Amino acid sequence: MNLLKANRDLLLKPVQMVSGIVERRHTLPILSNVLIKKENGKIIFITTDLEIEIETSSQASEMMIAEDFFAITVSTKKLLDILRTFPSNTEVALIKLDNRLQVNAGKSRFNLQILPADDFPRMTKEDLPEITLTLSQQKFKTLLHLVQYAVAQQDIRYYLNGLLLLVEDKFLKVIATDGHRLGYAAIELEDQWERKETILSRKTVLELAKLLDDSEKPVVIEIFSKKVRFAFSDVVLVSKVIEGKFPDFKRAIPENNTKQFSINRQNFLQGLQRVAILSNANEKFRGVRLIISNGVLSIICKNSEQEEAQEDLEIDYHQDAIDISFNITYLLDVLTNLTSENIQCAFENANSSTLITVPGDEHFKYVVMPMRL
Amino acid sequence: MNLLKANRDLLLKPVQMVSGIVERRHTLPILSNVLIKKENGKIIFITTDLEIEIETSSQASEMMIAEDFFAITVSTKKLLDILRTFPSNTEVALIKLDNRLQVNAGKSRFNLQILPADDFPRMTKEDLPEITLTLSQQKFKTLLHLVQYAVAQQDIRYYLNGLLLLVEDKFLKVIATDGHRLGYAAIELEDQWERKETILSRKTVLELAKLLDDSEKPVVIEIFSKKVRFAFSDVVLVSKVIEGKFPDFKRAIPENNTKQFSINRQNFLQGLQRVAILSNANEKFRGVRLIISNGVLSIICKNSEQEEAQEDLEIDYHQDAIDISFNITYLLDVLTNLTSENIQCAFENANSSTLITVPGDEHFKYVVMPMRL
Repeated sequence: MNLLKANRDLLLKPVQMVSGIVERRHTLPILSNVLIKKENGKIIFITTDLEIEIETSSQASEMMIAEDFFAITVSTKKLLDILRTFPSNTEVALIKLDNRLQVNAGKSRFNLQILPADDFPRMTKEDLPEITLTLSQQKFKTLLHLVQYAVAQQDIRYYLNGLLLLVEDKFLKVIATDGHRLGYAAIELEDQWERKETILSRKTVLELAKLLDDSEKPVVIEIFSKKVRFAFSDVVLVSKVIEGKFPDFKRAIPENNTKQFSINRQNFLQGLQRVAILSNANEKFRGVRLIISNGVLSIICKNSEQEEAQEDLEIDYHQDAIDISFNITYLLDVLTNLTSENIQCAFENANSSTLITVPGDEHFKYVVMPMRL
Repeated sequence: MNLLKANRDLLLKPVQMVSGIVERRHTLPILSNVLIKKENGKIIFITTDLEIEIETSSQASEMMIAEDFFAITVSTKKLLDILRTFPSNTEVALIKLDNRLQVNAGKSRFNLQILPADDFPRMTKEDLPEITLTLSQQKFKTLLHLVQYAVAQQDIRYYLNGLLLLVEDKFLKVIATDGHRLGYAAIELEDQWERKETILSRKTVLELAKLLDDSEKPVVIEIFSKKVRFAFSDVVLVSKVIEGKFPDFKRAIPENNTKQFSINRQNFLQGLQRVAILSNANEKFRGVRLIISNGVLSIICKNSEQEEAQEDLEIDYHQDAIDISFNITYLLDVLTNLTSENIQCAFENANSSTLITVPGDEHFKYVVMPMRL
């Protein structure tokens, strides 16, 4: 049975869009597969890892589609590899044989194993969302980028392995922390909402950051009690939320650090990257020492072979000298992910947390704990 | 003591040139280092892994160099990373402190451990070369590329882990084989020479292929009994040879295969790459089946899940049909490394070796044994 015939690019794009969440190895073989079905004259592509489900559809008007309903599941990776190998604009046919899907183009044909569409696990539908937000994809993507690197990895406090999406008054706030550093960013909304905390998994955040584009086109975020649904462009991504109580981030943000300087972000970043050459590359925590004194920031790295790198940067600072050390990764992360020209660093002493902000922007804060070298 | 001051790029290039052979981990720490010394008003950079030694020198006229003689050794990788991190055209100073080398540029300074230059192992000089060849770098580089992929890897027959450099009559021939396939290429020389076999290690060949450029500038090859010296551009690479007897390659080349067709190289390559998607990616030998029949070459791959890919290509072939299988890697290798528009395949039967050549070029031959699927 001929299922459809279409320009390769019309098939490649949707398969690419849904392929990101598919796990390489899984105990449930059907989770490697993409569900392809005809519905309301459109071709729908769906993948899932049981925690996240992504759905997209193709521009069916430019395809030749079978008259009958069909639904099959086939290896996402193999289908993607096959479509990629054809030249752009090749006409590709999908044909259902007995228990195989044949992918045909020119003088190439591939017979792929299929699994029953009925076995494909779907997420249950929720009733009405508690909150519905609409903002531009570009704004939401930027918001995620500002903090997502601070999400913990494989922390035993499982709720830290996610990003807190907090709706509060007229703001959408995102917070991520691994216990040693914390990122906070906020964006103003059109409407006022009841306070609502939702924790999104690291994987969901990374996938969103990948799929959202840099345009003014909208993303509609519907927050349910145990799920969040993101609809943007032709994509619908539904993610279960991480249950648990995110720590009170407000207490972690030091508001009264008195010693501060502002510095060109790129200069600070490049200085850190240079001295990092002589940090101990194989150790988990690579320390960097900052000596902040009258007019000069000295960035210093030493390794176990007693080799030393030092970079001196001019700063407008005339308060008491500070000698403070950090995990260099925590500084590199924030400096790499910001885009502002300058940043502001506010210290209290060598043992209490440092606040990094962007001059003129009250909606971004980054807190980092010092370390002892 | 100030050793030298120079534009970053004048230091980066020579350090890059010699860095390729430096092993990451070595029981002898000084082998991680580059020897930098002043000699005859030039700055010489040397690295070694005890089997290969590379030497290059900098354009000293544009540097400020210390008046006294100096020789130090310092970590190749760290020096390279440090030089890379400076913007192009930065002025860099090398200063010798007590037991440290200080690398200075702008407001950055790096103190690196040094080891005594006297401990740096040098290769002994040979007397007169038995053979001296001069050819263009581009020609020699192309010659190596034509066969180097066929060199064995970690074969117990250690002489197969190298490439045979054979001077014979008026030809320089290169031969590589892993016992399952064999590559042969030759180039005509200006002079006639006595027959001389030399086996170069895989590492030497890869390093040469990387360092030689695509120009008409000469490479001078001096062959000694236990070493070969290659001089090109500003580089001298001296390599010990692999001792042992390379197998008689002439016996492996089938000269009388009667069934043949020629085919567009790119089409054949792309067909193989496409069907390879359904080969067993995790197995060591990925087999491909070729069915050569009247006017059609069918390329077929199957995997253990009974999935199948087939690609049909038109060929001008009207002899007996052949059904023959190969390790697909052996075909992909040769088709990727050739540059000719067409290739010629000559078969005898499904159990004997196949010869791949380039129409109109008698100086290239590739022999591949079939496999049973």
